[in-house]
Amino acid sequence: MVKTLLEAFNKAEYPVVGHGKRHVQVLKNTFDHLDGEIDSDIYGTGKVIEDFQTKMAAYLGKPSAVFFPSGTMAQQIALRLWCDEKGSKKVAYHPLCHLEIHEQDGLKELHHIEPVLLADKDRLITLEDVRNMKEDIACLLLELPQREIGGQLPAYEELEAIAAHCRAKGIKLHLDGARLYEILPYYGKTAAEVCSLFDSVYVSFYKGIGGIAGAILAGEEAFTSQSKIWKRRHGGDLISLYPYILNADLAFDERLPKMEQYYQAAVELAGMYNNGIEGITTRPVTPVSNMFHVHAAMPKEKLEQILIALYEETGIGLTGNIRDAGEGTSYYEVSLGDRYAAIPKDRLRQAFELLHEKVKQTLI
Amino acid sequence: MVKTLLEAFNKAEYPVVGHGKRHVQVLKNTFDHLDGEIDSDIYGTGKVIEDFQTKMAAYLGKPSAVFFPSGTMAQQIALRLWCDEKGSKKVAYHPLCHLEIHEQDGLKELHHIEPVLLADKDRLITLEDVRNMKEDIACLLLELPQREIGGQLPAYEELEAIAAHCRAKGIKLHLDGARLYEILPYYGKTAAEVCSLFDSVYVSFYKGIGGIAGAILAGEEAFTSQSKIWKRRHGGDLISLYPYILNADLAFDERLPKMEQYYQAAVELAGMYNNGIEGITTRPVTPVSNMFHVHAAMPKEKLEQILIALYEETGIGLTGNIRDAGEGTSYYEVSLGDRYAAIPKDRLRQAFELLHEKVKQTLI
Repeated sequence: MVKTLLEAFNKAEYPVVGHGKRHVQVLKNTFDHLDGEIDSDIYGTGKVIEDFQTKMAAYLGKPSAVFFPSGTMAQQIALRLWCDEKGSKKVAYHPLCHLEIHEQDGLKELHHIEPVLLADKDRLITLEDVRNMKEDIACLLLELPQREIGGQLPAYEELEAIAAHCRAKGIKLHLDGARLYEILPYYGKTAAEVCSLFDSVYVSFYKGIGGIAGAILAGEEAFTSQSKIWKRRHGGDLISLYPYILNADLAFDERLPKMEQYYQAAVELAGMYNNGIEGITTRPVTPVSNMFHVHAAMPKEKLEQILIALYEETGIGLTGNIRDAGEGTSYYEVSLGDRYAAIPKDRLRQAFELLHEKVKQTLI
Repeated sequence: MVKTLLEAFNKAEYPVVGHGKRHVQVLKNTFDHLDGEIDSDIYGTGKVIEDFQTKMAAYLGKPSAVFFPSGTMAQQIALRLWCDEKGSKKVAYHPLCHLEIHEQDGLKELHHIEPVLLADKDRLITLEDVRNMKEDIACLLLELPQREIGGQLPAYEELEAIAAHCRAKGIKLHLDGARLYEILPYYGKTAAEVCSLFDSVYVSFYKGIGGIAGAILAGEEAFTSQSKIWKRRHGGDLISLYPYILNADLAFDERLPKMEQYYQAAVELAGMYNNGIEGITTRPVTPVSNMFHVHAAMPKEKLEQILIALYEETGIGLTGNIRDAGEGTSYYEVSLGDRYAAIPKDRLRQAFELLHEKVKQTLI
């Protein structure tokens, strides 16, 4: 007897979201085909790390790039460097920025940086917000797409206008590009084109790229060389980062060409959610990347019951994790990856018909 | 034509120090025999990380343990926690402590902790030093063995007296046990016995244990649970640390029983260095762990020339890295591991006879 939604999801014949299980096989698939004689990187030096940094710098259109064990570390350091350069302790970002809600206040506790929260929790930062800001900040961080509101994006023209404003005002612009690759099909831009609007850029390797862990911070050489000093201070300058780097390199080559496919999958799947199931909506209605949120006008526990039954009857697993959204509502995040292409479309449609039925019965 | 000492060392048929090359094969050897279905740890949770933490806590005789990507991160956090508990910004450690000379001042820059430097650079911290300290410190860090002076150790009775003094004075005692396993044969104690003298303990997995990277911080549950919050703040709470953990676990089981062997190898090899080669001495004269330093009364460049020629003539590689020690002298660190047992003793003795000759000719 299945007890939790996660267990039911893990047992489903066709899990819809993600690339696959996060298990040891991911690492084995990388290293089974690699030569054992490849030397480890040593404290940030050596061919393994330097080659990958060079490759990522070129891809992002920046002079230099540094591999970090985590984005948490890379982004705090980026903001610290811009603050130190300006002699300020203020930066600005969205109220649901990763640094504000997922990092145990590392930015404040370790770097004593005071964030100015721009925009409301339920919408994107606009040019207006940036223009109206009264505080004298060192850096503005923009997250593209804004994950915690379903992966929304500003119009590219607005992004350009924000960048131009910041440049004119001497405000550094930092990109939280944890999901940068995933938005390129919608914008119809190269990574380098988007990054050219920013002074510094962080990208991740375990979201759309599907690697084990790791991040890149890119910018001018003077910026990245300083970031290495802070990487050492944070305890991130490990003697060997190659388990992440070699995997990230392979996963990058494998999945970068599939970003258009993941994006189209998200558009298609969101369409199925938005097909008249009462109380169920997606945010955004039409995805602009491989992700969106599903919002339900019922409590988490009720939705879990429905989905557990659905998975058992159809073999289709829609999510493993639902969050309470207050006032008797709930939501979950959907990120499309490799798995979606393998799902028989008729079975997926049947599952959504059954979801429609089950939600209707619940609401009666 | 060999150009650098490191190249010559890497080409030598019998490198004397270390376990082996730091290359991708180390990781392959671990994962070739592991089941691909093992689930990744997820942000510090899951069987892989929890089981290993439990195992290490038991080994160290502490209630709880946390896996960290690096000792740099683990130790800064340990000292920060003791400082916060006491409401002080002062700790004490040796002038050649890792935190003082190898971490780009992370402790000062990120945590604003002011270290009191005890003892002189060329000797161990004594009970006298601790007793005479005027500052009101939160924590004393002791590194066993004291790496930067060749891996020296206080008498166990002195260690016990320092611990008793700290306990009486309300000073927390933290163990930098990067090489803790390596000193157990000399002390004739278990890890838990040594650790019982300390309030918190850090151990490493890529020195004597020969793993890829990683560290454990152990102590009371209230301490380690706080350390996880700071691990997140530092950017060390990676989604997946299993590449290091599973390797560390295997390397721990494989090499822990060999610490006596590595220690005896160090004693034997130091004896060969101390066999009347003019201007060459080891520190300590008789090692108390698997390590010692070799000091030479000649400049680094001259010693490099001698050793490059020695490696080429004998196939024996003694070190890959010599450091300048000022005033026309030089030194290098020697750490014994798996490699030593494979070296034919007659060839090793011949190499030392030739070293004797070459040094004599140089000094003439």
